[in-house]
Order: sequence, then structure tokens, then C-alpha cells
Amino acid sequence: MTERVPILRIGEVLVVSIQFDLEDQTVLRLQEDLAEQIVRRAARGVIIDITALEIVDSFVGRMLATIAEISRMLDAETVVVGMRPAVAITLVELGLSLGGVSTALDLEKGLARLGRSTISDEA
Amino acid sequence: MTERVPILRIGEVLVVSIQFDLEDQTVLRLQEDLAEQIVRRAARGVIIDITALEIVDSFVGRMLATIAEISRMLDAETVVVGMRPAVAITLVELGLSLGGVSTALDLEKGLARLGRSTISDEA
Repeated sequence: MTERVPILRIGEVLVVSIQFDLEDQTVLRLQEDLAEQIVRRAARGVIIDITALEIVDSFVGRMLATIAEISRMLDAETVVVGMRPAVAITLVELGLSLGGVSTALDLEKGLARLGRSTISDEA
Repeated sequence: MTERVPILRIGEVLVVSIQFDLEDQTVLRLQEDLAEQIVRRAARGVIIDITALEIVDSFVGRMLATIAEISRMLDAETVVVGMRPAVAITLVELGLSLGGVSTALDLEKGLARLGRSTISDEA
């Protein structure tokens, strides 16, 4: 059975925490689940927490880029949080600079980032 | 005879609803009709509603991109609304991320999006 990455929801923001090495099928499943939930819950933002990732490869880099693109197509902004220095260096070396993706230091700052552009209307 | 996709008008916004598989000739006709109406009605926005599309192929993806480009050249902003999760995934997989196109969940949000940048002046 394919493992499934849980998707949390905080207000209008979906939060995904990448905890372990994902297999292809799990990534595809995650992309489908995220796309479906963005639409169903009218989510305005997606936070991908990669604090647990000590290294990345091009597979993970592409996954982040793809999730960001799918989210953008569904009118949600993606913020990657918890990126380690070594991970940032590797992504740049791989040529995967995640153009359309914004980053924040941690989950709290990520929520604040999205809050500025989305949830602030509710205040 | 070539089928013709109707173009509705709401204020300064033109609304096109893609309801069925379009043939090449119908798409060309739609692009011509849209371009002509953008200019004639001084439209500031074009909303393409693809709620009815459950799947897309590269032909439809390119059509959306082309309409957006034509509109932009005529000083109108394009918003694609009603994109299903599977459609977003397919477009990204096809490498058609519709760079210059913004998206919104539904027609109402699409009008609001365009309203912020266009109709708001009337308020």
C-alpha cells in the first residue's frame, strides 16, 4: 500500500511535513491529495515543512517545484519552511532554485508570510 | 459550419465558458472573436471558465496560453476559473504552467480578482 503524507489545515493554509524519503507513488499521491484539498477547502496557501530533511536530491527538488506549480495553478501560494543550509546549497547546485517558491525560516514565519497576503483580510 | 463559443460580458469583463472538446477551427474562431470583442468593448479582463473540463490535453493548454497572450497584447488580463485538481496536475506535467495566467477558484472569485485591478475604480 502506498504511504500517504498527511495534510494539516490551519485556517486557509494547508501544511505538509515531509518526514522521510518519499517513493514516487507517495509523491504522486501527495500531489493529488494536495490539489484536491486546495480546491475543496479553497486554500490560499500551502506550507511544505522540510525541517526533517537533512539532504535532498533532484527528485525532492523537483517535487517541491511541481507542488508549487500545481498550487499556483489552483490559486494558492507555496512557502517552503525549515530549509537547512546544506539543502539550500544542494538545490542551487542542482539548478533547482525553486523560482516561484518563497521560503521562510520556520512554520510560524511561513504562516505569517501567507497571512500577510491572505488571512489578513479576516482580521 | 464551425461551432462558435459564446462570449458573455459582465461590465468590463468578457466571460467564456469552455463546455466541450473544441476543434481547431472553433478555437481559432474563439480567439478571433475574443480579440475583436476586447477591442470593441474596451474589455479589461477575460475570464475563461473551465469548470466543465474534467481532463485537458496539450491542445487545450496551449489554447489557454494563447488566449492569455492575445488578451495581454490587447491590454486585458486573463483569469482561468474552475480548474479541477486533475487538470492542474496534467497542465504542470505537460509543462504548460500558464505563466502569465492567473487563476481563481470560481467565476465569482475571478470577477473579484479582476475587480481589484479594474472595476474597483468605479466604486
